Amino acid sequence: MKKIAVILSGSGVFDGSEIHEAVLALHAIEQEGASWHCFAPNIDQHHVINHLTGEPMDESRNVLIEAARIARGNIDDVENLVSADYDALLLPGGFGAAKNLSDFAFAGSQCTVHPAVKRVCQKFADEEKPAGYLCIAPAMIPLIYGAGAKGTIGNDPGTAKAFNDMGGEHIECPVGDFVLDQKRRLLTTPAYMLAGSISEAACGINKLVKELVKLA
Amino acid sequence: MKKIAVILSGSGVFDGSEIHEAVLALHAIEQEGASWHCFAPNIDQHHVINHLTGEPMDESRNVLIEAARIARGNIDDVENLVSADYDALLLPGGFGAAKNLSDFAFAGSQCTVHPAVKRVCQKFADEEKPAGYLCIAPAMIPLIYGAGAKGTIGNDPGTAKAFNDMGGEHIECPVGDFVLDQKRRLLTTPAYMLAGSISEAACGINKLVKELVKLA
Repeated sequence: MKKIAVILSGSGVFDGSEIHEAVLALHAIEQEGASWHCFAPNIDQHHVINHLTGEPMDESRNVLIEAARIARGNIDDVENLVSADYDALLLPGGFGAAKNLSDFAFAGSQCTVHPAVKRVCQKFADEEKPAGYLCIAPAMIPLIYGAGAKGTIGNDPGTAKAFNDMGGEHIECPVGDFVLDQKRRLLTTPAYMLAGSISEAACGINKLVKELVKLA
Repeated sequence: MKKIAVILSGSGVFDGSEIHEAVLALHAIEQEGASWHCFAPNIDQHHVINHLTGEPMDESRNVLIEAARIARGNIDDVENLVSADYDALLLPGGFGAAKNLSDFAFAGSQCTVHPAVKRVCQKFADEEKPAGYLCIAPAMIPLIYGAGAKGTIGNDPGTAKAFNDMGGEHIECPVGDFVLDQKRRLLTTPAYMLAGSISEAACGINKLVKELVKLA
């Protein structure tokens, strides 16, 4: 059975992993006959957002502990993710990918990726194992794969420009499809960068995961 | 388009709504051509559980605010749920159903249901609108529908006995199926009371939601 490592960034679209994307992705992995295990960095979230009001809350939460909610506890510190144990990598979106795994939400094209996350993702790239990045998570791709990496990150011009400014090659893609950078075995889909419903997000995610598992 | 009201109880299996069940249910509602809107009580959670360790955390969280994470903000106080605006009701499981919506986790067959939740659920029952209860949420059924209501709540003997002691009639059911109390238009499925994977939970939830929308 193929094994897929999934890196989460908290639990909730505005300060962590987008919950629908994460659950849809885990379910899709099972539906393709593969297994999943989740990982997250053991760090404080950039901030905590009240998802009812959209306002920041005066508290702090840990990315790994919150991501454990999506994983039902089946999760480990990303420092302990050994690429040799897995056939492919998957990163759901949500602002956590741009606030906790990286600082793309604040620094744009000047962003950096959390060191352990970057190291692990580059290991999968170096070993030519396929990887899927959903929604805003592709913002990290140019820093992991270097110049010329192809991916989609929705159709917001500023976001696409930042992706290109970092050395990536942005490709527009409808929500129900995905982009494959064949040379790098790298898959991206817009998910909630474009989706107006769970079903729309599911359409692209299911197709991406099917190809990811096939390539693994 | 048929409209389904979904009552959540937080965000996370151990102290709120079971996230996979909630997302699968919302997705299934869309797949059946219906729409969803989420509700939750505006109260503090019974407690906050660290989902990495299973231990309680020294903080408090609000059920409605946390449930908003699953709903991406598309959620309202359950006090504002007007049954006339919806065609059917759905309650995912997770310990939140037994700790926040009711106190079944602590009081067993002596439990009570949060007043606003009870009032709303009884309204759907009185209006003979179909309702689906997943996982541990059926623990509330005898207090809402009265003696003789049929449902499944997994195969733990103590839990099933408590359901019967409250006046319900427990029916064993495999994870991939659901129980229909035809007279009451009431549907239940074990979900994570029995599921060993997201796919197993999805199987029963998808079947239940299909029937729920058909009956609505």
